[in-house]
Amino acid sequence: MSPAETVHVPLDGGRAYDILVGRGLLAGIGPRVAELGARAVAVVSDTTVAGLYGEAVLGSLREAGLRAGLVTVAPGEGSKSYATLAAVCDGLLAERIERRDLVLALGGGVVGDLAGFAAAILRRGVRFVQAPTSLLAQVDSSVGGKTGINSPHGKNLVGAFHQPVLVLADTATLDSLTPREMRAGYAEVAKYGLIDDPAFFAWCEARFGEIFAGGPARETAVAACCRAKAGVVVRDEREDGERALLNLGHTFAHALERLTNYDSARLVHGEAVAIGLALAFRFSARLGLCPGQEAGRVANHLALAGLPTTLRAVPGGCGDADSLLDAMRQDKKVRDGALTFILARGIGRSFIAPGIDPGEVRAFLADELERDPRS
Amino acid sequence: MSPAETVHVPLDGGRAYDILVGRGLLAGIGPRVAELGARAVAVVSDTTVAGLYGEAVLGSLREAGLRAGLVTVAPGEGSKSYATLAAVCDGLLAERIERRDLVLALGGGVVGDLAGFAAAILRRGVRFVQAPTSLLAQVDSSVGGKTGINSPHGKNLVGAFHQPVLVLADTATLDSLTPREMRAGYAEVAKYGLIDDPAFFAWCEARFGEIFAGGPARETAVAACCRAKAGVVVRDEREDGERALLNLGHTFAHALERLTNYDSARLVHGEAVAIGLALAFRFSARLGLCPGQEAGRVANHLALAGLPTTLRAVPGGCGDADSLLDAMRQDKKVRDGALTFILARGIGRSFIAPGIDPGEVRAFLADELERDPRS
Ligand SMILES: NC(=O)c1ccc[n+]([C@@H]2O[C@H](COP(=O)([O-])OP(=O)(O)OC[C@H]3O[C@@H](n4cnc5c(N)ncnc54)[C@H](O)[C@@H]3O)[C@@H](O)[C@H]2O)c1
Ligand SMILES: NC(=O)c1ccc[n+]([C@@H]2O[C@H](COP(=O)([O-])OP(=O)(O)OC[C@H]3O[C@@H](n4cnc5c(N)ncnc54)[C@H](O)[C@@H]3O)[C@@H](O)[C@H]2O)c1
Ligand SMILES: [Zn+2]
Ligand SMILES: [Zn+2]
Repeated sequence: MSPAETVHVPLDGGRAYDILVGRGLLAGIGPRVAELGARAVAVVSDTTVAGLYGEAVLGSLREAGLRAGLVTVAPGEGSKSYATLAAVCDGLLAERIERRDLVLALGGGVVGDLAGFAAAILRRGVRFVQAPTSLLAQVDSSVGGKTGINSPHGKNLVGAFHQPVLVLADTATLDSLTPREMRAGYAEVAKYGLIDDPAFFAWCEARFGEIFAGGPARETAVAACCRAKAGVVVRDEREDGERALLNLGHTFAHALERLTNYDSARLVHGEAVAIGLALAFRFSARLGLCPGQEAGRVANHLALAGLPTTLRAVPGGCGDADSLLDAMRQDKKVRDGALTFILARGIGRSFIAPGIDPGEVRAFLADELERDPRS
Repeated sequence: MSPAETVHVPLDGGRAYDILVGRGLLAGIGPRVAELGARAVAVVSDTTVAGLYGEAVLGSLREAGLRAGLVTVAPGEGSKSYATLAAVCDGLLAERIERRDLVLALGGGVVGDLAGFAAAILRRGVRFVQAPTSLLAQVDSSVGGKTGINSPHGKNLVGAFHQPVLVLADTATLDSLTPREMRAGYAEVAKYGLIDDPAFFAWCEARFGEIFAGGPARETAVAACCRAKAGVVVRDEREDGERALLNLGHTFAHALERLTNYDSARLVHGEAVAIGLALAFRFSARLGLCPGQEAGRVANHLALAGLPTTLRAVPGGCGDADSLLDAMRQDKKVRDGALTFILARGIGRSFIAPGIDPGEVRAFLADELERDPRS
């Protein structure tokens, strides 16, 4: 099956690679991986995704003449740990993966981050392929080469930049995703429009139903997001500048995730991002940077997609303004007490705003905590 | 104090750095590190080395205006483990090391490999400085950017290429090294002459007493080794070719370490290397590649330095020819059953020899096992 869309990522130093986006691609993964010239492939997956797609992928790889084995981890963020990393590395070694062989990450962002990191450090670096199966992974985490695990000191604090040699996003796999995970991933889709592509945001407003339902707009949206993220990454691989825009909504989101103890029963990342996006626009409006009706349009659309957009929508609450501010200060983007936000002059007009006065943020959060959770 | 010798390592991509070699350099480490523009430094060391030099280093760093903390691990190869890596990463995070800050490895090769790897993956990469305190670390492990830990599946199987921003080799620290560790490091010194520098080997034969005693030849030797290794690394950073020559003697050595269960009471790496070097030359002579008297001269010199040069010198023995051959097959440089050795046409005339017949090796080893341990 030929992919509906191909996004080329022109990284330097022989690291250029393709992102293939299409329905049913997993069935033909074997020949595509065989082309990369490995002898053996270790598929890393979580038990949920392995149960759904593991056999098909292993079968396709073996049919293409590759030695293929499976290394599984428990589903969920808890697997981005030192202990699971060690287990994955040892699992890859038990599968006799050598320098020229391949690691294939089959799953959501957790599996991609974990398997990508294991590939980065196994024998000081083996190649890896991403086969993202969650919407979040297809539009965000599988692109850009950031890999890693969490430390007790915080999320993603240990890891490597390691680019995949191929990304294969089979959009049919999203059919088995829970509606909640689908919505969460959709927050990141909308984010790309909000960052710098007002036309894409308008298109999302018109077509998001089709993305959820599985029509051709799904491939278009996934490819558009990959193209947007790949563009940023090629221009700023190590996040010295522009790449920070991808964190639109994320300073708020990370604080909310921290204050809900990363308990996905209460809040998953994409939900936190949806609230964060709405907050970033309302904060921009409050600072007089962005028209109020643009902020309203952002929140409206996210709410239509079933996403939360207010602090009071956080199940179990998220603490007071001071706890929120404190949690924000612990975010990686906070330096020497000064707060850096990604703000916006309107939909598709985001920018990096360093040196934001913490007092302003505090007052804004206090007001937000009074806001009706449904508005 | 100005260094006796400076070796510049001209790596590309803004990664060039200097190796400073001199007696007493640690006393002035603060200003040199401060020049690198960090705000905070975490010193990683083992408890032995920290006990000897930790206070002096921390004091010098703090006097230079840097925030400095100490993270220690137990001495010995056992610290190159997943668990200790996690502890070091968390220790660095507890010391609030950020992207622009520095990790300083103060110790032997174990600390350098471990701390360098932790620096490579902390926040996806922070800069690190090597302050090697063993002879092996000064002439070998601190140069070249290979970092890593061991897996239950084998040595150095998990790691990263991560170049230091500065190497500071204080040759006075070698005065507190045990004679055995000093001799072990010396095996690697002699190796550089054997690889491609017959004049350096001859110089070693004449001056090795001064290297051990701490005269000016010590700095000359350390700098010469760093220059040799840096040259190879710059030409072949990822060991696609020439860098393999640095493994002269090491296929044998790794097999011996494996067969003595990495028990340093029986054999330390440098002792295994000494035996490996002698074997590589005798095997070359047996294959008619190298004059027998050159092989004799190699073994003689190593023996004069107090190093073992025969299989029967391994305390507790090392198994029979088949176990040795088996252990060699497990070495990283063995691919698809064919054996690759580094052999020599004479002192300073080593070369990569792929496709060596395992039968030849077996017969050679069987004869070696009959050899008098003192010849
Ligand atoms: N590397 C990056 O640049 C980057 C960017 C954003 C997020 N992330 C990381 O991504 C992670 C979140 O990713 P995620 O939301 O995909 O989480 P996830 O990998 O935990 O997947 C969410 C859940 O969906 C299940 N699942 C995945 N695909 C499925 C499918 N096709 N059918 C049925 N169930 C499926 C998983 O088993 C899991 O239970 C976080 O750890 C985050 O830090 C990384
Ligand atoms: N990265 C590389 O390129 C590379 C190359 C060769 C070896 N290595 C690694 O290096 C390690 C061996 O290094 P090593 O021999 O330095 O071992 P080490 O770090 O264990 O040091 C040997 C012993 O000497 C002690 N010590 C170190 N400096 C001292 C000093 N100045 N005074 C008193 N005691 C001191 C240590 O506490 C330790 O007990 C191995 O793990 C090996 O894999 C790495
Ligand atoms: Zn996100
Ligand atoms: Zn060695």
